[in-house]
Amino acid sequence: MPDLLHAIYLLAIVAEAVSGALSAGQRQMDWFGVCFVASVTALGGGSVRDLLLGHHPLSWVAHPEYLWYTVAAALLTMLGARFVHHLRRLFLLVDALGLVAFSIIGCRVAQTAGHPPTIIVVSGILTGVCGGIGRDIFCRDIPLVFRRELYATVAGLVGIAYILLETSQLPHDLVVILCLVGGFCLRVAAIRFDWRVPSFLYRDDAAHDGR
Amino acid sequence: MPDLLHAIYLLAIVAEAVSGALSAGQRQMDWFGVCFVASVTALGGGSVRDLLLGHHPLSWVAHPEYLWYTVAAALLTMLGARFVHHLRRLFLLVDALGLVAFSIIGCRVAQTAGHPPTIIVVSGILTGVCGGIGRDIFCRDIPLVFRRELYATVAGLVGIAYILLETSQLPHDLVVILCLVGGFCLRVAAIRFDWRVPSFLYRDDAAHDGR
Amino acid sequence: MPDLLHAIYLLAIVAEAVSGALSAGQRQMDWFGVCFVASVTALGGGSVRDLLLGHHPLSWVAHPEYLWYTVAAALLTMLGARFVHHLRRLFLLVDALGLVAFSIIGCRVAQTAGHPPTIIVVSGILTGVCGGIGRDIFCRDIPLVFRRELYATVAGLVGIAYILLETSQLPHDLVVILCLVGGFCLRVAAIRFDWRVPSFLYRDDAAHDGR
Repeated sequence: MPDLLHAIYLLAIVAEAVSGALSAGQRQMDWFGVCFVASVTALGGGSVRDLLLGHHPLSWVAHPEYLWYTVAAALLTMLGARFVHHLRRLFLLVDALGLVAFSIIGCRVAQTAGHPPTIIVVSGILTGVCGGIGRDIFCRDIPLVFRRELYATVAGLVGIAYILLETSQLPHDLVVILCLVGGFCLRVAAIRFDWRVPSFLYRDDAAHDGR
Repeated sequence: MPDLLHAIYLLAIVAEAVSGALSAGQRQMDWFGVCFVASVTALGGGSVRDLLLGHHPLSWVAHPEYLWYTVAAALLTMLGARFVHHLRRLFLLVDALGLVAFSIIGCRVAQTAGHPPTIIVVSGILTGVCGGIGRDIFCRDIPLVFRRELYATVAGLVGIAYILLETSQLPHDLVVILCLVGGFCLRVAAIRFDWRVPSFLYRDDAAHDGR
Repeated sequence: MPDLLHAIYLLAIVAEAVSGALSAGQRQMDWFGVCFVASVTALGGGSVRDLLLGHHPLSWVAHPEYLWYTVAAALLTMLGARFVHHLRRLFLLVDALGLVAFSIIGCRVAQTAGHPPTIIVVSGILTGVCGGIGRDIFCRDIPLVFRRELYATVAGLVGIAYILLETSQLPHDLVVILCLVGGFCLRVAAIRFDWRVPSFLYRDDAAHDGR
């Protein structure tokens, strides 16, 4: 990818992640829902394209730092939602740039893989629009796991514990058992004591302006 | 695929595309939404099957003309919706034929790939019904990009411009920049002047007869 | 997979299938919808993970017996819904165990495939939560094929007939034609005579306790 297009791509996934996080915030999702919707909005178009074209690894699997960018953008959006609001006009412009950059990148990916013109154009369209389609589906029908007490959070903490314990000298089976028992107790405690992670509520009086 | 089954397959994807376009028209989607839903309805079952079985390339990637058939069926449906209405009974029959043909084709694909009987039957079921499941999901929760001013249209025009310019003698980087600038200006103008593509409204008084 | 984790995995997919079947029953789906949602809930997380990581064959394609377990759990749930109701507390515990087991298995799959820590954690989260996300999407927007007269059922019967006839000495083309004609007549008769499969209605007065 040429440097210019790559720079625009990075700018665009951050802008799309903010757009996704704001949509999630309008439906009062928890931190996981916000990060999930932000990542789907930013990276979903390219992922749908790569899945349909059988093009592995997906961009964010090969470059996990892209996920960090979208998650960071989502968390910063939660913290600075009021400020973000004033940047609405700027985000519309970056979103426009992102749509075009995503489309061009989608065309290039299909072209490089040797597909015919029809598939190249379809690849560009899918890359441009599928992130937004995913955002809208998850925001209209909010999955319960985006609103539940420490559900996805437990999964994430188990994953982090697993990684950390694996780097220790502990035998693998012990790591598995520790993660199992710890995660189970955490989840049961979350149900029992109704622990919840803070959710993000973003009220947008201008929400009907076409976004 | 035997000739008979292939002919029925082609008839069926056209009939399913019409069914998808009519559903999209009942929700007043724009041209892109109508074509998208029509293609998902016609080709989504086979695509889900091939994705789950890891069977690449997908049928419409290998045969892009299938996409042309579904898009043409969708556009003709938009133009001739009143006429299509009178063919409702015929479409129910073709849909019944299509369901069975899709199921048989799904079984054959899994069988050819050497899967056991359970997976063969599941493959047939998924091929038969997943297009309709996709249609219903997209028609209940209409993604915003199916209703926005020149959003998917910009992605499509950028793709077409990219293909055309690549066939010229222009250097690749210049093509990318031309597409970027042109697409960006078009999208910003669409927002600024509220340009919209015509949407398709299909009112069906008999909409509750089981479709 | 160690024996302990595998045993917990099998327990967990059954528990998740019951959870999915109960959700489907609250929306009065037919037998196919109930089995579909149960299977998505139980096996969807691992399938999303394997699709995104390009890890084929999917677990239920390699082990079709997993599908039998989820379908059996769904059908038994339909039969014994009142009894299941009294086991609610037990299912919450098994669901908690399942969430953790799914997450650990997701981490292990990504780790074995050589992915970096970020992808390992994401793989664990996706495996843990995507089944529930799928369940919620299908239960909020019920696809019509889950409520129609003998639609998916026809696809399934065609598949079974295809398998049985293929084991006979009949020539392949004749098998295809027999399946086509038989399935078509069955579907048309189902429309004509309004044949329906029984649907499953599960009323749960305690439905707002967080599930």
